[in-house]
Order: sequence, then C-alpha cells, then structure tokens
Amino acid sequence: MPSPSRLYQLYNHWMMRTATYFFIFLNLSLALFEEPAVYPLPFLATSVLEVLCLLVFLGRLTHFAKVTLHNVFWKDTKNICIMVAILLSLTDLAVYGVLRLYDVRSIRWSRIVRPIFLINFAESRQIRRAFRSIRNTLPEITYVFLLFMFSLLMFSLMALKLFGERNLQTAEGLPYFRNYLEIVFDLYVLVTTANSPDVMMPAFDFSSWYALFFIAFVIVNTYIFMSLFLAVVYNNYKKHLKNEIRKLAYMKRRKMIEAFNLLKEEEGEQFVVREARWKQLVKLVAPDTSNSHRELLLRISDDEQKGFVDKKSFMQLADLLNIQVVTLKIRRHPLARRLPALYGSAPSRLLRSVVRHRAFVWTYDAIILVNAIFIALDEESPYVSYAEWVFLALYIIEILLKVYTYEPREFFGKTQFWNWFDTLIIFAALTATILNATLKSTMKYNSQQILDIVLILRVLRLIRIVDSIQRFQVIMNTLINIVPTMLTFGGLTLVVYCVFAIIGMELFHGKIQYFPANSNAPHALECGNPALKDSLFARGKYCKNNFNDFASSFIVLMELTVVNQWHVFANGFANVTVQPAKLYFIAFHIVMVIIIVNIFVSFILEAFFVEYSLEKSEVETAIEQKIQELGMGVQEDELHHEQLLDNMESAEHELEGEGGTKSQSKGLVFKIASKPSSPLPPQPFCVPCLHEPPSGDTALVAEVVLCQDTCFPFSFLYGLCIPAALDHGGTIPPFLWLGYRTVDALLQRMFEAEIPLEDEGPSFEEILNLSPSSVPRSPGSESAA
Amino acid sequence: MPSPSRLYQLYNHWMMRTATYFFIFLNLSLALFEEPAVYPLPFLATSVLEVLCLLVFLGRLTHFAKVTLHNVFWKDTKNICIMVAILLSLTDLAVYGVLRLYDVRSIRWSRIVRPIFLINFAESRQIRRAFRSIRNTLPEITYVFLLFMFSLLMFSLMALKLFGERNLQTAEGLPYFRNYLEIVFDLYVLVTTANSPDVMMPAFDFSSWYALFFIAFVIVNTYIFMSLFLAVVYNNYKKHLKNEIRKLAYMKRRKMIEAFNLLKEEEGEQFVVREARWKQLVKLVAPDTSNSHRELLLRISDDEQKGFVDKKSFMQLADLLNIQVVTLKIRRHPLARRLPALYGSAPSRLLRSVVRHRAFVWTYDAIILVNAIFIALDEESPYVSYAEWVFLALYIIEILLKVYTYEPREFFGKTQFWNWFDTLIIFAALTATILNATLKSTMKYNSQQILDIVLILRVLRLIRIVDSIQRFQVIMNTLINIVPTMLTFGGLTLVVYCVFAIIGMELFHGKIQYFPANSNAPHALECGNPALKDSLFARGKYCKNNFNDFASSFIVLMELTVVNQWHVFANGFANVTVQPAKLYFIAFHIVMVIIIVNIFVSFILEAFFVEYSLEKSEVETAIEQKIQELGMGVQEDELHHEQLLDNMESAEHELEGEGGTKSQSKGLVFKIASKPSSPLPPQPFCVPCLHEPPSGDTALVAEVVLCQDTCFPFSFLYGLCIPAALDHGGTIPPFLWLGYRTVDALLQRMFEAEIPLEDEGPSFEEILNLSPSSVPRSPGSESAA
Repeated sequence: MPSPSRLYQLYNHWMMRTATYFFIFLNLSLALFEEPAVYPLPFLATSVLEVLCLLVFLGRLTHFAKVTLHNVFWKDTKNICIMVAILLSLTDLAVYGVLRLYDVRSIRWSRIVRPIFLINFAESRQIRRAFRSIRNTLPEITYVFLLFMFSLLMFSLMALKLFGERNLQTAEGLPYFRNYLEIVFDLYVLVTTANSPDVMMPAFDFSSWYALFFIAFVIVNTYIFMSLFLAVVYNNYKKHLKNEIRKLAYMKRRKMIEAFNLLKEEEGEQFVVREARWKQLVKLVAPDTSNSHRELLLRISDDEQKGFVDKKSFMQLADLLNIQVVTLKIRRHPLARRLPALYGSAPSRLLRSVVRHRAFVWTYDAIILVNAIFIALDEESPYVSYAEWVFLALYIIEILLKVYTYEPREFFGKTQFWNWFDTLIIFAALTATILNATLKSTMKYNSQQILDIVLILRVLRLIRIVDSIQRFQVIMNTLINIVPTMLTFGGLTLVVYCVFAIIGMELFHGKIQYFPANSNAPHALECGNPALKDSLFARGKYCKNNFNDFASSFIVLMELTVVNQWHVFANGFANVTVQPAKLYFIAFHIVMVIIIVNIFVSFILEAFFVEYSLEKSEVETAIEQKIQELGMGVQEDELHHEQLLDNMESAEHELEGEGGTKSQSKGLVFKIASKPSSPLPPQPFCVPCLHEPPSGDTALVAEVVLCQDTCFPFSFLYGLCIPAALDHGGTIPPFLWLGYRTVDALLQRMFEAEIPLEDEGPSFEEILNLSPSSVPRSPGSESAA
Repeated sequence: MPSPSRLYQLYNHWMMRTATYFFIFLNLSLALFEEPAVYPLPFLATSVLEVLCLLVFLGRLTHFAKVTLHNVFWKDTKNICIMVAILLSLTDLAVYGVLRLYDVRSIRWSRIVRPIFLINFAESRQIRRAFRSIRNTLPEITYVFLLFMFSLLMFSLMALKLFGERNLQTAEGLPYFRNYLEIVFDLYVLVTTANSPDVMMPAFDFSSWYALFFIAFVIVNTYIFMSLFLAVVYNNYKKHLKNEIRKLAYMKRRKMIEAFNLLKEEEGEQFVVREARWKQLVKLVAPDTSNSHRELLLRISDDEQKGFVDKKSFMQLADLLNIQVVTLKIRRHPLARRLPALYGSAPSRLLRSVVRHRAFVWTYDAIILVNAIFIALDEESPYVSYAEWVFLALYIIEILLKVYTYEPREFFGKTQFWNWFDTLIIFAALTATILNATLKSTMKYNSQQILDIVLILRVLRLIRIVDSIQRFQVIMNTLINIVPTMLTFGGLTLVVYCVFAIIGMELFHGKIQYFPANSNAPHALECGNPALKDSLFARGKYCKNNFNDFASSFIVLMELTVVNQWHVFANGFANVTVQPAKLYFIAFHIVMVIIIVNIFVSFILEAFFVEYSLEKSEVETAIEQKIQELGMGVQEDELHHEQLLDNMESAEHELEGEGGTKSQSKGLVFKIASKPSSPLPPQPFCVPCLHEPPSGDTALVAEVVLCQDTCFPFSFLYGLCIPAALDHGGTIPPFLWLGYRTVDALLQRMFEAEIPLEDEGPSFEEILNLSPSSVPRSPGSESAA
C-alpha cells in the first residue's frame, strides 16, 4: 500500500479532480437521456451510467477516507451526505428497475438528490459557502417575508372589499378580483411587477381614484419590501463573508507563527530564521519563483542584509509570495537575432515604428468602425461579402505586424488577454469563413450553424474597440476579475435549476406540447391542450416553454428567473393540471429571485466596492520601494502597453538556472503585476496535512508548506489542518482547495490592515468559534476585536 | 424698519415657511387647472394665481435678501435661479396671454421651470442634496452607460445577423428583428425584462439553440450591467453622504470650540465654563428642557461637582442635548384623584389588573383575527353587518378600558404611535359607519366613497396585530424611522414627474382618448385613434393611460416607473405620433429607473444597515450611567409597555417652576428614549446668523445658539454661518434648516466615534473643501483622515 502522503498527492492530482467533476456532471446530465429525454437512451444504458457514476463517487469517498483521520472523516456531515445520497440513488434505481420489469411506472424521485454530489464533493467549497450564507440568512429573511406576506394579505383583503362586488372584468373578459386567493396571487404577481399595469386597469377604468390603492401597494411592497429583502440578504452576506475572512486571516497569522517557531534559531537577543533556511523554505513553497525574484524577497525581508529574517518580516512572507512580481527582461526579437541585418534595416525600423505609433491603433479602431457598418449592411450584395474578406485580411495583417514588431512570447504572454482574444477570434473566423466558402462552392450548400458562428465571431471582433478607451478598460477589467467568483453562482443556479427541473418534469411533463406553426394537429394553437383555449399562455405562443424535457425545463426556469410574464406560465400550467400548481412557481420565485438573485446582486455590489477601494497594500508598497531602491524598477506610468511589449518580457522561469545571488543583469527589471493581472482563474493549490509528526530538522522545513494562494504554512501539527475545518460542513478534512480569489483575497487584505502586526489573534478554538455577531458593527468601522 | 434679528425671526417663523410651501405646491398644482385641465379654470384665473405665486416667491426672496449679507446673497446660485425662473415665468405668461388675445396658441414652456421653486427654496435642503448626489454620480454612471450601450449595440448587431433574414414573425404577426433600430429598442426593453420571454419566442420556436443568445444577453445586460448601475450609484451615494457627514461633524466640533472660547474663564490652570453661565446657555439654547433634565446634564458635564465644566465636557454639550431624555414621574390617574374610593375599589382594581394582564392583549389579538375572517366573508348577510357593529363596540370598549387603566395623558403621549393609530382608526371608522348607516336609512342611498373609506379603515384596524410580535415591531420601527427621509425621494420624484408630465402633455395630449366600455364613439376600442388598431396598447385596454391631463400623466409615469409593459406604452404613443417619441420613454426610464430608483434602493440599503448597526453612543452610555448613579433610573427591561403606562408619565415641562437644584422628588425617574422614539419628523429649528459682532459679555451667551437638532453653536463670527454653505448650491445663506435626521444623525454619530476628542479637525476652509475622494477607502475601514 502506498504511503499516506503518496495517496494524498494522488487524491489531489488534477486528473483525479477533473475525473470527479466529469462524473458529477455526467450524473447531472443523465436527466437529458432519461425519460422524458432530449436524446432518449434505453433505461439500461442510463442506469449503467448512473451506477458507474455512483461507484466513482464511492471510490472517491473511500480514497478520501484513506487519507483522513478516522474520527474526522465520520464527523463530517458532507461525507455522510454523500453516502446517504449514494445509498438512496441505488435503492431508488433498483426499485424503479424491478417495478419496470413488472411494467409498473413509478417516480424516479432520487434524481433530486443528484445535486448533492456537486455541493458536497470537497472541491465545491465556494458553492457550499454560498449555501451556508443562504442558510444563515434564512431566519432574518423569514421575518421580513412574514411581514411582507401580512402586508400582501391585508392589501388583498382591501382589494376584495373595494373591487369584489363591482362586477368588473379583466381585459380578457374574466371576472376581476372576486376570489380572495386569486387576489393574493394577482397582487403577489404585482409585487414582481409582472402584471403591471394590467391588474390595475379594470379598477382604474371604473374610477381614477382607485389608482391610489395600486400606487400605495407598489410603493410599500415592490419598492420598500423588495429593497428590504436585498438589504437583509446583503447585510448577512457581508457579515458572514467578513467573519469567514477574519477567521482565515487569523488562521494565517497563527500558522505563520508556528512556522516561525519551527524554523527559528537564536541570534543575539531574538529568534530569527537564517537566510539559508529561509531560501530553502521559499524554494519548497514556491518552486516556480525565479532566483532573482527570491533574492528580491529576501532583500525586503532582510532589509539590512544581516543574513537572517526576523519574526516580523517572516510573518509577511505569505503576503510577499502572494504578490505577483513580474520579472521583466529586455529581450530581443527572435528575428533580430536570426536576421539582424534585415530586422535592423531602415524599412523594417520604419515599419516597426509605424506599428508602435498611436495612430496605428487609431487606424485599426477606424477600420473596426467601418467594419461594423459593413456588417450591418445587407449581406446579399457581393461587395459586402468581398469586403468581409478584405477586413479579415486587414486583421490578420495587423496581428502579423504586431508579432513582427513585438516579441512574440510577450505578445502571447499570460496576461495579454486582448491579444489572445483577438488572435483566437480572427483565426476562428478565418477557419469558419473558409469552411463556409468551401462548402458553398463545392456542395452548393450553406451550413446554417457555421454561418451563425461566422456571424457571431465577426461581431465579437468589434468588442476590441473597448480596449482602446482607458475608462472602459477599468470597468471591463473589474468585470473580468469577478468572473471566476461569478461561476459560483452558476453552480448555485445549476443546483436550484436541477431540483426544480426534475420536480417540474414530474408535475407538468407532457401537459403542454409544441407544434410548429403550420401543424395540423388538434389544438395546435392551444399547445395541444384544450384547457389552454383563450389563455394568455396560448395567445402569447408560449407552447415551446414546457417541462417536456430537461433542456426545455431549464429554459422555462431561466424565463421564470427573469420574472416577466411568470404569472402567464403559472396560470397556464395551473390550467392544464391543478390550481395549486401555482405554488411551484411561487416557490421558485421565492428561492431564485428573492434569495439567489439578491445574493448575486450583493456579491456584485461587494466585489465592485472592493475593486474600487483597492489600493496597494503595505506589503506591495514595501516591495515596490525595494525595487526602486535597487534601481530595478519600471515606473508604472512608463508601462504603456506598446513600450512594454516592445522590449521586455515576463520571464518567470528564465533565471532559474543562473543561481547566483547578485546576478541581476543590467537588463533585468521588476514590476508588480498590475491589478487586473490574469484573466484566468488561479490554479488550485492543495496543502497536505501529514499524519506523522516530523522526524528531524530538515524534514521540518519540508513540511512547513505554504499554500501559494491563501498562504497557510501547514506545519506538522498532528491532524490539525484547521483551515479546512472553516468549511463548516464538517470537521477537518485533510486538504484544502484554495482556488478562490479576488473578493476574498481583497477582503482579507483589507481586514489584515486592521490587525496590528503584534496581535497574534485568538487561539485556534476561538477562531473556529468566531461568530458573525461578534464582528463589530458591520457597515461602519470594521475594526476587528 | 424692524431690526435684522426680528426680520430674521419673522423669516423663519413657521407660518411664513408654511405659506411658502403652500404657494410652491399651489404653483405646481396649477397644471391641474390649466389646459389640458383636470378641473378647467379660465385662463384669467390660473394666470392671476400664477402671478400671485410668483409675487409671493419674489417677496420671500426679498425678505431673504434683507436678512443676508449683500455679497452672500448675490453669490448664491439658488437665488439667481429663483429670480431667473420668476422672470421666465412672467415673460412666458405675458407672451402667451398676448398671443391668446390674438387667438394664436403657443406652448406654455415656462411650466417646466416650476419645480425650480421646490428645489431652490432654502427649506428643500434634502432635495437639493439628492440632486447634488445625482450630479456627482453622473460622470461614472455615464461610463458604465456607454459600455452598456456598446454591449447593447453589439448584441443587436448579432441579432440582426442571426435572425434578420429568417423571415420570422412575432406573436402579433409582425416582422421579427428586421430593422436595426427596432432591434436595439426591443433589446433595450429586454434589459428591463418587460418583453421577456415574448421577444425570444419566435427565435426559440425556430431553433432551441437560439435561446442561448437571449440567455447570454440577459446575464450580461440585465444581471451584470444593471447590478453595476446599482453599485456605481450606491458607491457614489455612500461616498458623498459620508463626505457631507464628515464636514458636519468637523464643523460641529469647531463651533463648539468657538463657543467654549467665548464663554471660558480661567480656573486654576485651565479654562472652564462656570456653572451659572453653562445653565444660562442651556436655557437659551434649549428652552424646553426641564430644570431636572438640565440638572442631570450638568451632573454629567461637571462630574465631580466642582462648579464648572471643562473643555472636554463642554464639547459634549451638543450631543447631550441631542439625546432625548424622558423625565418620568409617578403620577396618579385623574380618576384616582377625583374619585379615589370608586377607583380604588375592589372591582375597579380587578378590572385594571385584567386590562393590564397579557391575556387581555391576546384576547384582542384573537378578536382581530376573527374580525379579519368576518371582513373576508360576504357583506350581504345581515349577521356579518351586525357583527361589524359588535367588533366596533369591542374596539371602543378596549380603548375606554385602557384609558381607564392607564393615565390618559401618557396613553396619548407623543411616543405612543400605536395608541394614536388605534384610536384614530376606530373613531374614523365609527364616524364613517354611522354616517353611512344614517344615509342608508334616511336617504336609502349608499355613498360609495364613504363605504370605501369604511372598508379601508376596517382592514387597517387589523394592522395592529403586527405590534404584538416583537420581531415585527423592530422591522416596522425601522421602516417608520426611515419614512421622513423617504419623503425626500417623494420630492425628487415629484420634480421629475412634473417635468416629464408637462413635456408628455405637450407631446401626446389628446392623441389617445378613453371611452367607457359601452361607448359608441368611433374607434372606441382603438382609444379613438385608428393608428392603434390591433396594437398591444389597444388590446391591453390601456386607453385610460394617456397624457390628456396632469393627473393622468402622473399615473402613466408611475406605471412607467414600475417598468412592466412600458414598451407597450412607448409603441402605442409612438404609433399615434412619430417613432422618435420612443426616446421620451427611454429618457424617462434612464432618469427614473436607472438613476432615481437606484438611489432610492441605495438609501434604503444604507438606512437599513445603519439602523441595524446602531448601538448606544458613548455619550448616551455616560448619561445612562449617571442616571443610574443618581438612583433615578428605570431599568430598560422593567419598561414594559403596560407598567410604564400604568403609573408614569413623560413630563417635559412639569418641573419648570420648581427650580431647585436638588429638588428631584422621589417619584421622579429618567430614561433615555428608546431608539424608535418618535414617529413624527423632528421640528425644524433655525439658527440665526447675526450681522453685528457681539457687544458685551452677556450678549455673548445669547448669541452662542445651539441648534437642537444637529447641534451647532452659532457664535458671533461675523457672517460666517458656515454650515449652511455646506449646501454647495451657493455660498453662505444666513440660516439653516436642520430638520433632517435618522440616517444622517446616525452616520454622524458613527463618524464621530472615530475622531478622537482631542482632534479639533481641519480649519473651516479645509472643511468646506473636503472632497469625497479624500475620504479613505469607502467600504472597508471608515477611519477618517
């Protein structure tokens, strides 16, 4: 049997993780192939696939149990959840299969437990946190909701009394405001504004004064109560986020102190970490750091070059490593090395200076604008389609010229989002256009799909113009920065949609059919269901919005999330089944719109505020200062795009081999990567929690492992990998997936600025028990304990 | 001629202010009587009224000029604005009148300047601040808006290319996505979700994959961009609010120091204010304070009873006066004084203990619930209408019993919102019911209006049940507390509505007519306009939504604010006039929904957060401590509603005459008024700014006037009433209306907690020039400079 640490590394191998995700999504997407199916597969096939998925989950869980302490594993509700879910799924599958053999149709109810795997596999930390945030918000939301319901019921009662006996009719000729429950539903819909002003018109036509009733209703319920919901959700979101961040920050500090205590040696009157050990540690912890970068960090930590790092500087190590320092080097273009005469010749130099000129960018901006006009013009004219080739050629020439002028490796550097974007879009467009032209000329056939893709790519090309305007760049970068965390909400939405889609399919499957416009089927105009005759649903031609398969259900749920016309859906589906079916739609509205969309908005607000308030942290300033002191800096304002691309490149592994301590060549400069550095989400990084206490001195260093992303030094504390336990779900799983960033990291930094360096924070147990209510006043001063 | 200070007091007299408001609203409501009128009046009448209003405004302005320094008055843009508006109105009125004589109809364009009077009369400080906040937000909003428009145009281009040549049709049989500008409009409407999912259905019916286009569109534009708008507005709102609050807080401190310097006398090594002078000051500044209250404050300020107040304690005076201390006194029921034998008899005592018992409240809660059921039941049955009398009687008995048990003056105390609410509702219902019954029996006639009012009052009675549940009470109190500031948004909305209504009437007046259901008029179903045949507008029976008079315009604008179906309105009105008329609706959406509603939501969010984070301030704690020390306190938890009402009453003027220093009778207790103290907005309080430098020592004290609400000591600084200049509009008007509260006061308190007492703040000039950008990081730590 392999050693626990080998097993552990295997568990965290990216392939294992990818495989787990693959099976989670396979399991979720089985709904596409099961009855009612988008792409029907025999029951045997889907059940074999499901069993396979469940076995994989079981295997993953067993693997996890092997690398975790026994009592820790069994205390974790996540693991219990997964086991129960596997058991339920298998039982249900067996029962369903047996009943099927006897031709008894039962409900595959276990399908709603499938999202549990997405939530509970340890990698989905973010989604779990979002769920925790929802759970924590529920009590407060409930009170506001009850008050809101009370207000709704009161207004409904008033409406019944005021309008109930007037014999009014709606625009569809139906009785208006007669039945109390229907009034409650209609006014609930009005809160979502979906039936405004229709619901008011009959009363308003009767007497203008009745408009005041609806105005009062909208002000109280739509404006005040809905804002109150956002306020409650946002307040809780902030409170809990801050609490978790505070825990993380204290935890990090504790861990750094522990690491220091492990590595410290006496030096005069104080304990310090000596240079050699420090370097060894950094090499272990961040093997990708270049020698020169390491040297720079040492210079900052050991300011006076005394040959050791004191406690205070050592504590900063995590932050230092966290800051992306780009090692820039003046590097010549490969052509300049291969063909110096040609590359250095007068025409070549002229060409390059033309490309580097600001007017070059402007020219291409103008070309993009002209292109936009051509795209908007009629496709049919041959000139326009020739022009398309011209534009494509112009864009390709632009890219080639830039690669000729700038160093190619820098041009396609990791942080050059727009260059990558441009190139990919252009070459995809080129490929698709050529493919389309070939198909057209050889097979006289226009592939609709390819044409659509060509069209979309053509328009996407125009987006680049945004990058030319500084102000837009800032907003765009903010948006790009919050994309990774936004994916969490994608996950959250996926879970809610899956559950509701599966319930919706059970409730409404087959009740509504879609027939193409020229169909002769009976009741084709009423979506195949006479109950929908004259309904708004049929009149709006909504027949294709049904729960007949998993994909359609998702689209219906998306439309319900957007809210508008949701009452038409609710009434339509209630007409073809039973009236209480409306509850399904109300429940979805409460869960999705009142809770999840509000959390999403809270998240955007918070992310935006943090991005806006972001300043360079103290540590960053220290690094910059040191870079400047050493005369190796690049002024931020010198760093115009073109100049930077021109003769510098980011080299992270470049100097690895050179090794020497003071070997910074003259051409070498550093700069701190600017805020919106990488459009790619950071790599997840896992930190092992070892079972054995360390044996010797050298082992110590090896086991104090810093996590590059959130910077926990994981010391040998037997079985005490606390940070993972922050993940309230259970207790202490032996690894951490720290692949989250942006808002968290920024908040953490802001929080840290508030704890004095001397403050070692509370003990581990206290940290774990920190509650949001102990966070001091939330909106105001954020000073910690 | 009266003295400047008499003139000044006259200017600030509540009657003068009320009169000004009356004429402002009269001027605004003239639109109701002018063509197109709700209640037509001859042109002569409305123009005489308008001239009268303008003369009043001119008079008010002249009065204002008299009490202000000359150069100050002319530097203030507000005053210039008012003068220009008066001039414009008069000119327009004259031109219109003359042209009318010659039967030439022109446009009364000057009507849009009328809201200027509402904005610019100095009392509307809050509305001006809101406008300033909007102005400050505009640049940032503009960038986001441009990016949003770019995204919209890109998506529209894609939509044109993807769907333009498919020959699809909308549900109404119109061509789908053919014209670029129409696509832009349709997709803009989709951003507001008003035409979802209708706008998607034709493409979705054609191919399910096209749903992805709309999903991407909604995510990017509706969810991300709209949240971004909220974030930008909220961020700016907070930033500017905090800046103003910071200025106020510094200003207050400066003024307190000045007041101290005026009043100080040497005492040993320090300067102090002696007791007599201190008392004189407090009496001047807060004449309503009772002697015992003043004594209490002195005890807090002069902790060791040394006979003087030192600088540090003096600085707190403003805050001390700001805290509502209720002087409670054990007081006997008037009946107990008049008829002690009867009131003290066994049955009377039993009765009172029954009323005081918790079960009494529960019984009445139960009665309310039963009442709710009876209200929901059919009115026609005679038993139900008899029951109504029974319930009314029960409620009246309840009130009588309570007045019998509790001291009446306390029962109707200023802070007893629910008692007032109950009594008013019940007696209004009683009056209306009796009136209705009388009309019915004598004239066999049911007045619809009275019946409606009875019905509404009957339902409103039920609201009282909310007050029985603690959690709901908290939320309700928060809501009640933010009502005064919410009125600002009422003012803001009024201004925007007025302007848009007047423009809308010019554009769309008479184009759409409403005919009752059984009308035989031509095109009655098409709102009297054949251009609306088959339009959604006519089909939705929206004919009564028109711009034919001022009131109807307001209702249409309200419906546009709610957003849903606004595209139907836009299309309808564009059909009956010209297509560019849609711009009017888009402009209204941008101004009202994107800017003002977002500011409103920001305001609710901020108010809610502040209310939630409210704790007792240091000063409050000090007062409470002192009250406890002196043994005159009431434990907060003892202060149950019933007990308090039973034998205590708030007496603010009660001890005025007694005078003695240590005369607190045994029955006298204090308590700090609990947070949600008064549902009524605080009284505005004006602070004169005197022209002459003070002459003597006694005058000094008289002129150091503290404003009770925001507590500025206005010293004699010649013409330097700075706080008013905070009102950026102009420079330095000579008075301040400080009638705002809640959020501001709370924020100020929070900010003050962050400035150390020693910090005297920057100089006046620096304070005035503080910019929001110098406020440190906004969402995070709010520590001030």
